[in-house]
Amino acid sequence: MNTVDIIIKKRDGHRLTAEETAHMVMGYTEGSIPDYQMAAFLMAVFFRGMDREETVTLTNVMRDSGDIMDLSAIEGVKVDKHSTGGVGDKTTLIVGPLAAACGVPVAKMSGRGLGFTGGTVDKLGAIPGFRISLEESEFIRQVNEKGIAVIGQTGHIAPADKKIYALRDVTGTVDNLSLITASIMSKKLAAGSDAILLDVKCGSGAFMKTQEDAEKLAEMMVGIGNSCGKKTVAAITDMEQPLGRAVGNALEVREAIDVLRGCGPDDITELSLVLAGMMIYMGEKAASAEEGREMAEEALSSGAGLEKFRQFVAGQGGDPRVTEDYGILPGSEVELEFVAPEDGYVSSIDAMKIGLASQHTGAGREKKEDDIDLAAGLCLHRKVGDRVSKGDVICTVYGNNVKKTKKALEEVVDAVKISEEKTEPGRLVKKIIG
Amino acid sequence: MNTVDIIIKKRDGHRLTAEETAHMVMGYTEGSIPDYQMAAFLMAVFFRGMDREETVTLTNVMRDSGDIMDLSAIEGVKVDKHSTGGVGDKTTLIVGPLAAACGVPVAKMSGRGLGFTGGTVDKLGAIPGFRISLEESEFIRQVNEKGIAVIGQTGHIAPADKKIYALRDVTGTVDNLSLITASIMSKKLAAGSDAILLDVKCGSGAFMKTQEDAEKLAEMMVGIGNSCGKKTVAAITDMEQPLGRAVGNALEVREAIDVLRGCGPDDITELSLVLAGMMIYMGEKAASAEEGREMAEEALSSGAGLEKFRQFVAGQGGDPRVTEDYGILPGSEVELEFVAPEDGYVSSIDAMKIGLASQHTGAGREKKEDDIDLAAGLCLHRKVGDRVSKGDVICTVYGNNVKKTKKALEEVVDAVKISEEKTEPGRLVKKIIG
Repeated sequence: MNTVDIIIKKRDGHRLTAEETAHMVMGYTEGSIPDYQMAAFLMAVFFRGMDREETVTLTNVMRDSGDIMDLSAIEGVKVDKHSTGGVGDKTTLIVGPLAAACGVPVAKMSGRGLGFTGGTVDKLGAIPGFRISLEESEFIRQVNEKGIAVIGQTGHIAPADKKIYALRDVTGTVDNLSLITASIMSKKLAAGSDAILLDVKCGSGAFMKTQEDAEKLAEMMVGIGNSCGKKTVAAITDMEQPLGRAVGNALEVREAIDVLRGCGPDDITELSLVLAGMMIYMGEKAASAEEGREMAEEALSSGAGLEKFRQFVAGQGGDPRVTEDYGILPGSEVELEFVAPEDGYVSSIDAMKIGLASQHTGAGREKKEDDIDLAAGLCLHRKVGDRVSKGDVICTVYGNNVKKTKKALEEVVDAVKISEEKTEPGRLVKKIIG
Repeated sequence: MNTVDIIIKKRDGHRLTAEETAHMVMGYTEGSIPDYQMAAFLMAVFFRGMDREETVTLTNVMRDSGDIMDLSAIEGVKVDKHSTGGVGDKTTLIVGPLAAACGVPVAKMSGRGLGFTGGTVDKLGAIPGFRISLEESEFIRQVNEKGIAVIGQTGHIAPADKKIYALRDVTGTVDNLSLITASIMSKKLAAGSDAILLDVKCGSGAFMKTQEDAEKLAEMMVGIGNSCGKKTVAAITDMEQPLGRAVGNALEVREAIDVLRGCGPDDITELSLVLAGMMIYMGEKAASAEEGREMAEEALSSGAGLEKFRQFVAGQGGDPRVTEDYGILPGSEVELEFVAPEDGYVSSIDAMKIGLASQHTGAGREKKEDDIDLAAGLCLHRKVGDRVSKGDVICTVYGNNVKKTKKALEEVVDAVKISEEKTEPGRLVKKIIG
């Protein structure tokens, strides 16, 4: 099979056979196809796309490039939850314990953050003592004993995706439906769960800027998941403004605990209950997503969710006192405030700009190898639709470097718009697909 | 300047600034931009194209990446002739001596062949003793003394093109108007002539398969040449069937000498006279291309062209007896014949298939580093429109390897179509542009 012929075939808009797709992916992963041919191929795919069948093949070949987790030693229907990435998205830290408290086994692999979106692994890293790397046997034992474990992605899961994603990132070939789908789904399918719940973010702080694009991606991922034999459902949710008030690792852990204590912001609480309800239903512990949601509400108000969070943290070596004493989380030395210059209403908070501001405080990575500052980030005291009076603190920015924190503050000021008219925020859950 | 941003800008269909184009070309040539980013960029250019202004910049940056020849020490108007590449195209060996015999200084750099098209440098290599590498001073002296010299392209001419072309070849990004234009014109502009005559081939044996595409390429090249201050004219000429009868290095030298002796095939003789006439006119030795053609006819019939060829060959160390004794050219050990299986007319001879057959005899290269067999190739005894009777020899295939020569013969049989109806060949010179 000739690599240039396959590039030209896709370039000219023809369907690739399964063998041709496999040749490209495996050849590149194994090193027989050089970077530059894969880069030209990915750009051709960017322009020509791939149909459903080609995308299924692409996903399967990428999934099969590494290990496939065997979670059969865990009893019950394992439901994986995946967010396409947003700003202030700490739902896993809340939804996981709520679902586990309702009897759904949560055996989750999570990623690290890159760019302006955060990663669950980094957030958990803010809890003193928490171990994100567990041996497979330890992982399974913790899920069977405590009902929930969250570990970092291992190098053996979908290595093809790892290599291809790194190349897409530096060749302007990230934004393509088939490539995004295969990247996400190859990892999810290899992660060994029985069902997959996708939280597809849409808005300025997400990959998908419009609801239309988010729906297309959701439909493609749901289709691929189901055709690979895993029940897959997607929720399209808002990412015009950040989710909740806190952005940054330790800050988000605090906010997640606030939610589990019943005193978190409304939007993140609501979204967590919706997603937990769907997970409980998909995990066959409720007859419907609505019943699942009621169970999740009960777990929240009874404190069962918070207790599950404590068990989860303690089980992985973390200090469970974090739920009562935020003082044990990393703290920052610099705090700067964005004070309202006039009266009015918050009319928009650009999620991407906030995400970048948070990244620039030190809370996020620009390059994979960057270290992050677990204490850094920001907290929004007002959200879209809220009234502000001149002198109110709209946002506090935290960091350990004065220059960086100042720059981030300027970016926050640029991200928040205030107007005279009251604006309502967009619907939080826009659509359920699947 | 961020390379990924430039890739994405072109990918999304925007015009690049001169600085952005220069950043890509120079960064890649100097090694600061890796292969894979250039490959993605080239594929984006393939899909989005470049406008006239971007192509001018691309051409100029590529031209300026290396040396620019200074031919000011040669008196007269120097006219460069360039063919976009065809099968059996030995016109330079005929047109050069004819134009030189009429007083136009011919100071030409020629390329080696790759794929199914031949290169003048390889053809001249078939003449015993001929030296294709001359020092610059020697080159200029020969043009001033003999009126004509032809040398191989030096490594210092447009190194950006050399590197980019090699990458395009393996990434499926060859067939793009702007990239082809910049590749050809950057070298021509660096070669130091005062005017440029382009022979743009069209048909199955050419880069450009249709007259429409050939005209687009010709118009773009003529526009770029003129806007860079060199008078540029293009002839669109037929490459549906091979030019002349001989394909292969020594065989083509024979045929070129046949033409200069007045006994060559009609088509190659006619095209050579047309191109020589244009060159004589562009070199300001005739008041029109028609007058130039008359002068070329005179140089042909008087033997002045043949005499100029002898001087040219002798001047570069070649054995001038070649014009009288083809026996001193390399000979082949294997000769196979394609004999007409039935009566009829030759209705088509696929030039690309013939080019590939010739390549497979050993006359052409598949990879740059391949050696070639100077004696190998083929000779077509019938061309499109000719009558054949069962048993006539339509083609003789020459080689030094029985297996390869047999395979080539099969390809020749596949390339030649015979029908009951007489077909007229296409017009040889389809259009003059500029």
